[in-house]
Parts: sequence; structure tokens; C-alpha cells
Amino acid sequence: MATGKAHFPDMPPIDGLRIGVARAGIRKPGRRDLVVFEIAEGSHVAATFTRNAFCAAPVQLARRHLSAATPRYLLINTGNANAGNGEQGMQDALACCAALAERSGAVAQEVLPYSTGVIGERLPVTPLCNGLDAALADLDGGHWHAAGEGIMTTDTRPKGATRTVAIDGRQVTLNGIAKGAGMIRPDMATMLAFVATDAAIDQDDLARLLRGGVDASFNRITIDSDTSTNDACTLVATGRGARLASDEALSAFAAALDEVLLELAQAIVRDGEGASKFVSISVGEAASRDEALEVAFSVAHSPLVKTALYAGDANWGRLLMAVGKVPIEAFDVGRVGIDINGVTIAEQGGRAAGYREEAGAAAMADEDIAITIRLGRGNATETVWTSDLSHDYVSINADYRS
Amino acid sequence: MATGKAHFPDMPPIDGLRIGVARAGIRKPGRRDLVVFEIAEGSHVAATFTRNAFCAAPVQLARRHLSAATPRYLLINTGNANAGNGEQGMQDALACCAALAERSGAVAQEVLPYSTGVIGERLPVTPLCNGLDAALADLDGGHWHAAGEGIMTTDTRPKGATRTVAIDGRQVTLNGIAKGAGMIRPDMATMLAFVATDAAIDQDDLARLLRGGVDASFNRITIDSDTSTNDACTLVATGRGARLASDEALSAFAAALDEVLLELAQAIVRDGEGASKFVSISVGEAASRDEALEVAFSVAHSPLVKTALYAGDANWGRLLMAVGKVPIEAFDVGRVGIDINGVTIAEQGGRAAGYREEAGAAAMADEDIAITIRLGRGNATETVWTSDLSHDYVSINADYRS
Repeated sequence: MATGKAHFPDMPPIDGLRIGVARAGIRKPGRRDLVVFEIAEGSHVAATFTRNAFCAAPVQLARRHLSAATPRYLLINTGNANAGNGEQGMQDALACCAALAERSGAVAQEVLPYSTGVIGERLPVTPLCNGLDAALADLDGGHWHAAGEGIMTTDTRPKGATRTVAIDGRQVTLNGIAKGAGMIRPDMATMLAFVATDAAIDQDDLARLLRGGVDASFNRITIDSDTSTNDACTLVATGRGARLASDEALSAFAAALDEVLLELAQAIVRDGEGASKFVSISVGEAASRDEALEVAFSVAHSPLVKTALYAGDANWGRLLMAVGKVPIEAFDVGRVGIDINGVTIAEQGGRAAGYREEAGAAAMADEDIAITIRLGRGNATETVWTSDLSHDYVSINADYRS
Repeated sequence: MATGKAHFPDMPPIDGLRIGVARAGIRKPGRRDLVVFEIAEGSHVAATFTRNAFCAAPVQLARRHLSAATPRYLLINTGNANAGNGEQGMQDALACCAALAERSGAVAQEVLPYSTGVIGERLPVTPLCNGLDAALADLDGGHWHAAGEGIMTTDTRPKGATRTVAIDGRQVTLNGIAKGAGMIRPDMATMLAFVATDAAIDQDDLARLLRGGVDASFNRITIDSDTSTNDACTLVATGRGARLASDEALSAFAAALDEVLLELAQAIVRDGEGASKFVSISVGEAASRDEALEVAFSVAHSPLVKTALYAGDANWGRLLMAVGKVPIEAFDVGRVGIDINGVTIAEQGGRAAGYREEAGAAAMADEDIAITIRLGRGNATETVWTSDLSHDYVSINADYRS
């Protein structure tokens, strides 16, 4: 299941970046499972990685390579996450980087590896390396859609976003693709995102803007509170386009980057396994942003709230429960109010006076649900996005390995 | 669904305590839904309550009464939680206390109210008060089993535990009952426990031992990480039996109390809605008890672990993921090992060398699953208990209000 319409935008090429996609037969024959990004010399690359202590070998190696050299290639495979494989996993990831380097005249440290797919099985190094020639022969600036498909595992559709922004009279382009059926499958270690721009931007600015953008997008979505071992978001700036020389230019670029990242993050939630609802949870009137975020995630993670969303039940009791279980000092719950898609269902900590069940049921019938929670404590607001908890979620995750 | 065998033990009377049960028709006609505990003068009473900020009116009133007077009556109804009802809820709870006080010669502050059942509907004060005469006429020291039934809501069976312990040559008795189908239904605000003893014990000791015992039992179980608005655990000591005059006597009593509380807490997990597995998660070799507990709850709350348990899948990748997502400073995941029912499935942070899927599948076929996790960091150990995440869980919680 998935919510919303599938839509992959037309993406203009990014000067200084080419993409090659191949069918290497890593897990299943005939499907796109190998993607190579070729990055022109002089580019900058920033990346954020999973905070799970059990991060996969490619994550460890990508971190190491990124700190040692400026990347010239991103090497992505699906079908196998190369996670939980210990020292063998590191050797295999390195062998793939070396194979790509050898074929392309780079050195292994200039290759960042990314793997997604099943955990705990050895990476099929031979088919992967055999597929590299086809991927390199396929290099082209226009292959974003094929790359979007090439990084899919259990996703039901490719996910892409693009923006152009005018900087000092020139166009700067941002393209991004992402995969992940909701961070819900560490068996199929999940979230990957690749974003590229032709903007000329300093390395420090690039890293800072990526951190901020990821924090407001991928770190604001949750399907089931679980964290993948392979998550990574990578941002490439080739520098062939306009230079971001002023604060205004950086701000305009940052706004477009944030939009691309948020669109990709929300596309992941919409494609979450078992998802029948796309739910935004905004917590306002909080004493701090941390407090707002903690309440929003408490609601987003509550299985009782998520099953009520699945049922289309405007269950204000469960929502109040999920708000109230957050340990907040001097919390006057008698000030809390809740709207669902504009219908006030709770106020002053209880059922709203004028609330009718029919209005709540009508609001819950939408596929997109906006829950707005007012804490009555201050002026901070935060929003997170999530999906519901359905029979399909249980089926998918209970049946997957059987 | 529920796991394990239903068993309600024979419970001897507690001198100084009588129980009356009635059918008041609070929500459904003909079922036991009203329970009164009569507590002899000179008794001590201690209680712990939910930490959810949205605590129900009876919880607020019970706290207030407990701080103002020594309780002579506990008044428990099922069918209605009197939660989310604002000031009206407080007035209704107080009216019920006053009605019992009037009928029994006590004052309202000597009555502690407890309500469990549906949230957000007004407490049916009239049928409840009309039922009080029958409950008072029923008062008897032997009515523990009827009381266990009388506090049930969606529980599939009454839950009781009893112990006797020799103190200075005399027997001291501890009886307890609990209800709760897993803290998973704030609609049916869930967990209540009542424990009584004839031991003579100081108020401060009683409160201290209850806090410690609850912390090691009810605070160590989780079905779905949600916290009810009505949870309460109450301990009555009538003082008619042996005096706990020495540290040895207190220790012996505390051990028996801990056993009663743990048995009741585990009975709640076994009766958790949708539960097909009873799962203990022990985290050892931790640097501190807090660290052990945090890891244990991370595993116990992970929907991916819980669906794997439901599927009978010895999924070491999901277990490692749930361990790794806990933010632990300087965590060397290469030292982590995991056993399931004695079968080592992971060691040194990956799949165990000698592990065979058949052995894992055989271990997971049991209804009772013991997961042992070694962090390789220290000597602290903690254990929590939980159930799996099944289709029935989703059905029960998605369909409940429809």
C-alpha cells in the first residue's frame, strides 16, 4: 500500500554529474540494482549517516573515505545491505570501491559505497563488479529516473524531487532521489537519499545546509520508530553553476534544498509499507522546540494512535494519552487542544464542547490527516510526519523472512 | 488471545479486610462491575499512580484523599474510566465516595476511588451508587476471586497471586489481584492492582517497599509503550498479623511482596490483547542498570522485533538494530551477543558462527521466549517483559470503537 499519487518529476541534468544504471543480478535477475554517480573534479560532497551503532560496512567505509578524499564516485547497490557481516563486509565493500576505481582511473578512497537490501548475507562482490562496466558505459546526465528505480528495494515507486532557484540572475538546479519503504525494515536496510546541485558552494556551507535540511526532513519522519543500519543522505555540489557568494544566495539555496529533502522524506512516508494514511502531526504552543518535538514523536510512535488512524477513528482519548505520557515539568493538561483536519476534537484537556463524532469521522476519512496539537505553554512549534499501523504492516513484517 | 494457563490461586482471608462485589449495571447488565474493599481501622495504605499527565479524575481524587486521611474503603468500578471528563469527572468521583461514606459511617476522604473502562463518557453515578448496598451486604474476607473478576474489563481471565511468609514464627499473608489487558487500551484505561497483607508495618516502610516492588514489576512490563491514564497499584496492610520489627522481617516480607507484584505484572503481559508470545528480555554486561533498562525497552518496544516474535522468526538483524539504536557513548557493538531460549544467535555483533536457522526456529516455536542480550560493557543486568505484535493487536485496537 501507499498513499497519494506516484509522481516522478522531469529532472534536468546537473552539469558535472553523470549517472549510470545497470542490471547486475545482485539478488534478482533483470532488475536495476546498480547505480554509479560520477562526480566531476572540483565538486564538494557532504553526507549524513545513520546514528544506529550497528551501522553497516558501507556506512563505515563511506565515512572513512569521505574524511580522506573528495569523492569522485558514488557506488550504490540494492539487493544486499552488507550489514552484520563483520570484517568480511568491510573487505567486500572495499573490493567493490577498488574495482570501480580501477575501471575509472580513480583511487578507492574516492569512491563512496552504499548498499541496501537484505541484512546478514555476504555481498555478492563478483556480480556487482561485473556490472560496473555496464553502469560506466551507461553514464549520462539524464538518468535520474532510472537511478530512482535502481535504488529501490521494497519501494512501490521511485521517489524524486527537483527545484531550480535563481541566484544572481543564474539558475541553480537541485535534483534528489530517495528510497525507503519507511525505515521499517532493517532486514532491508532502508533509507538512502542522493541530492545533487550545480551550485558552487563552500564545503563547510554544504555540510551545514545538509545537516539543517536533514534535521527538518528525514529526522522528522517516522514509520515505526526503528532506525535502519544503512541510512545515508548525500549531497553533491559540482560547482559548475552559480556561486553562492552572499547570505541571500545561501538562503535561497537552503530553502530550495530544504524543499527537495522534505519532498523526498514525505515521499518515503507515503510509500511506507502498510501505510493507508499520510499523517502530519504539528505540536504548537510548546515551551520549546524540543518539547514540541518530543510530544509530536510520542503521538507519532503510539501504536494506539496509529491503529486509531488506520481505523479512521478520531480517538481524542488516545491522542490525549499520547500527549500526557511525555514527562513535561508542570504540565497543565487542562490547556491542551487538538484539531484533526480543522475539526476541533479536544479542548481544555477533554472532549471539545461542540464536537460531534460525525465531524471527526468525516475528517478522518481523508487519506491525508493533519493533527494539530496545542499545548498552551509557549510559542514553539514542530511538525513530524508518519503513517498508520495497519494489518498490512504486521503482515509485511511478520511474513517477510518466511 | 493470551499465553500460558489461566490460574487463580486459593487466597486465604486477610484479617482486617473484607471485600464486597456487586453487579451494578454500570455499562453492561449482569456482570460484576463494582468492588468495595473495607479496611479495618489502624491499617496503613500506600499507592502508586500513573505518571501520565492526563490522569483520570479518580486518580486525582484518590491522591488527594490519600494525603488527607487514612483510607477505610477502596471503591472500584469497571465499565467507565471517568477519564477526560474534566470538572464533571471530579464531582462524579467525589459523589460516589460520599455515597459510600454515607452508607458506611465513614467520611468521603476515607474512600479511595478507582475507575476503569471507557474514556470520555460520564460516569454513571446513579447505578454505581445504587449498587453500593449490594456490595456492602456482600462484604466477606473470602471474596478475592470474585473481586478479581469484578475489576476485569477486556481481560480474558482474573489475575491473582498470594504468598505466605514466616515472620518470627508467625505467618504473614499477602494477597493481590490485578487487571489490565496489557496497558494497551487507554479507551479502556487499564492497569489496576490491589494487594493486601495482615502484616504490621510502618507507613513509611510500606510506601518504600511498594515503590521498589512496583519499579521491579509493573514498571518493567510493556505491551506497546503506551501509558494508561488510570493505572494505580494500592497496598493495604491491616496490621492484624505479625509485626515487621527487624530488617530481616522487612526483607522477607519485601521478597514476598516483590513476588506477588511480579506475578501479577507478568499475568497482565500474558493476557495482553493479541499476545501469542510471552517474552522476557534480559540485558546483561551493561555499564549501568539504566543502560541495561534502556536497551531492554528499546528491544521490547521495537515493532520490527515484535512482529518477528509474532512470526516466530529468530531475526538477529532486527534485534541488533534495536540494540544499536540506543544512543550509548562509546558503544563497541562488536562485543554484543544474543541468545534466544539458550540458542546463541548473535555474537561479536553479528550472526553467531555456529548458528543454524533451524535451531533458532525451534527456539522461537515456544510460547515463552527468553531473549538474553550481552553488551560486553560491564556487570549490570535488567529484565523486562513484553508480548508480540500480532494481527489481533491491530484488529482489537483498530476495531474497538467501531
